[in-house]
Amino acid sequence: MSNNINLSRRQIITGAGALSMGAVLGQIINPLSKAEAKGGDTEKWPWPYVKLDPTQTAEIAYHEWYRIFCGGAVISSVFSQLREKVGGPYKSFPIDGFMFLEGGVSGWGTICGAPMGANLVTNLIIGPRITGASDGVLMGCEILEWYGDTALPIYVPKKPRVPTKKIPKTTSNSPLCHISVGKWMKAADKPLKSAERRDRCARVTASVAYHLVTLLNKWKDGKYETEGEIPSADFGITAQYNCEECHGANVPTPPGGDDE
Amino acid sequence: MSNNINLSRRQIITGAGALSMGAVLGQIINPLSKAEAKGGDTEKWPWPYVKLDPTQTAEIAYHEWYRIFCGGAVISSVFSQLREKVGGPYKSFPIDGFMFLEGGVSGWGTICGAPMGANLVTNLIIGPRITGASDGVLMGCEILEWYGDTALPIYVPKKPRVPTKKIPKTTSNSPLCHISVGKWMKAADKPLKSAERRDRCARVTASVAYHLVTLLNKWKDGKYETEGEIPSADFGITAQYNCEECHGANVPTPPGGDDE
Repeated sequence: MSNNINLSRRQIITGAGALSMGAVLGQIINPLSKAEAKGGDTEKWPWPYVKLDPTQTAEIAYHEWYRIFCGGAVISSVFSQLREKVGGPYKSFPIDGFMFLEGGVSGWGTICGAPMGANLVTNLIIGPRITGASDGVLMGCEILEWYGDTALPIYVPKKPRVPTKKIPKTTSNSPLCHISVGKWMKAADKPLKSAERRDRCARVTASVAYHLVTLLNKWKDGKYETEGEIPSADFGITAQYNCEECHGANVPTPPGGDDE
Repeated sequence: MSNNINLSRRQIITGAGALSMGAVLGQIINPLSKAEAKGGDTEKWPWPYVKLDPTQTAEIAYHEWYRIFCGGAVISSVFSQLREKVGGPYKSFPIDGFMFLEGGVSGWGTICGAPMGANLVTNLIIGPRITGASDGVLMGCEILEWYGDTALPIYVPKKPRVPTKKIPKTTSNSPLCHISVGKWMKAADKPLKSAERRDRCARVTASVAYHLVTLLNKWKDGKYETEGEIPSADFGITAQYNCEECHGANVPTPPGGDDE
């Protein structure tokens, strides 16, 4: 979490003074030398990107779910193609290591691995805020909001493992795995271990991968205008947009307000 | 999320049949060739590890928070030292790209970046479940549970930016940033943008880094016996252990139960 996260989007976009300040402080305080702390070519942004086919990407994501699950599958669906088409930083990225994003990080039901993996991809391709770029983090936010607002899964695989009629669509209103999966399980009346729930998550993963690549292709064409918002700037606390879902009518006001 | 996530810990540890099945399916279905899909040395586990000093690691994490925030700082505190001491896969890992873990992923208040970064570190050093290893994911789970159960921050930096008496300790009972930060802000009566809240998060980050390296050092010595549990195995849904905090007395029962 950051002081900068409460800056307006414009401040972030223009690379606010606080970022420069952070860089200066980092140089003074960090006990590691600049050379040791640098990752070489993989810490130069943006990473080279070529436009990918959304359907092919979604197909890879769907099948990869059955190998390394939601987060790993979204990352693999994009990065494994770019390993072949581009090489560079994608070759050394440890895709399979991100299997742990499954189940909302190691089964804990926090952020769904699919949008988490998508945020990783947008930030690693476009670059982190510290570079002065903002489209990586804002495209990630846009995907988190889209994920909560959309009746999922959208994508229908070419060779589905479970008939589509058995996979209802549900809207999570949240990027959390526990809430997304829980609402789907209630609507479908199917347990976590069922083939239907598993195929639902594989299709959600494919749907996110499709959407992710659609946005990245627009960005590559210079036509991406973000719809992403950083919620903490609106709320005075890091947050989702579904306050009442947990708090009911009594949504607390953060201490000191947002304009201190 | 996974079918395997509901297996017992013993089944995971012994490398269950389902994992082998996944590998076979991956070879058949994945449209990318094996060579293209492999990340080379970075996808061979475990990654080489040498024991690190917990205090030095915590100091790096504390200062790095002011540069790339919670998740990036935990990753940097371990990987930047290993870049110097080991080299190998740490050299090409894009640490700074993980700045987006700030604020519970891009300010959305989902999983706190500090335990998220720690899960990334345990899984990338020890290896993902697909390798047959389980200590990576279970050490990650142990850190998520410790994070929720512990009055944080514990670690007091050598040169604190804010006096320690201004930083109360709070217990989140959850790995979610929104809940962790929200409970602290309420106890401290300080807003998100305050110097106190920021230093609290830097100290939480340092506390997690300290604990992470303590566990990794035990693992390196062959003395790590995990206390981690995968909650979905207990609940029949991906979950935290604080059901009543959101659900009140009416915690729903997942469809079909856990033994279908």
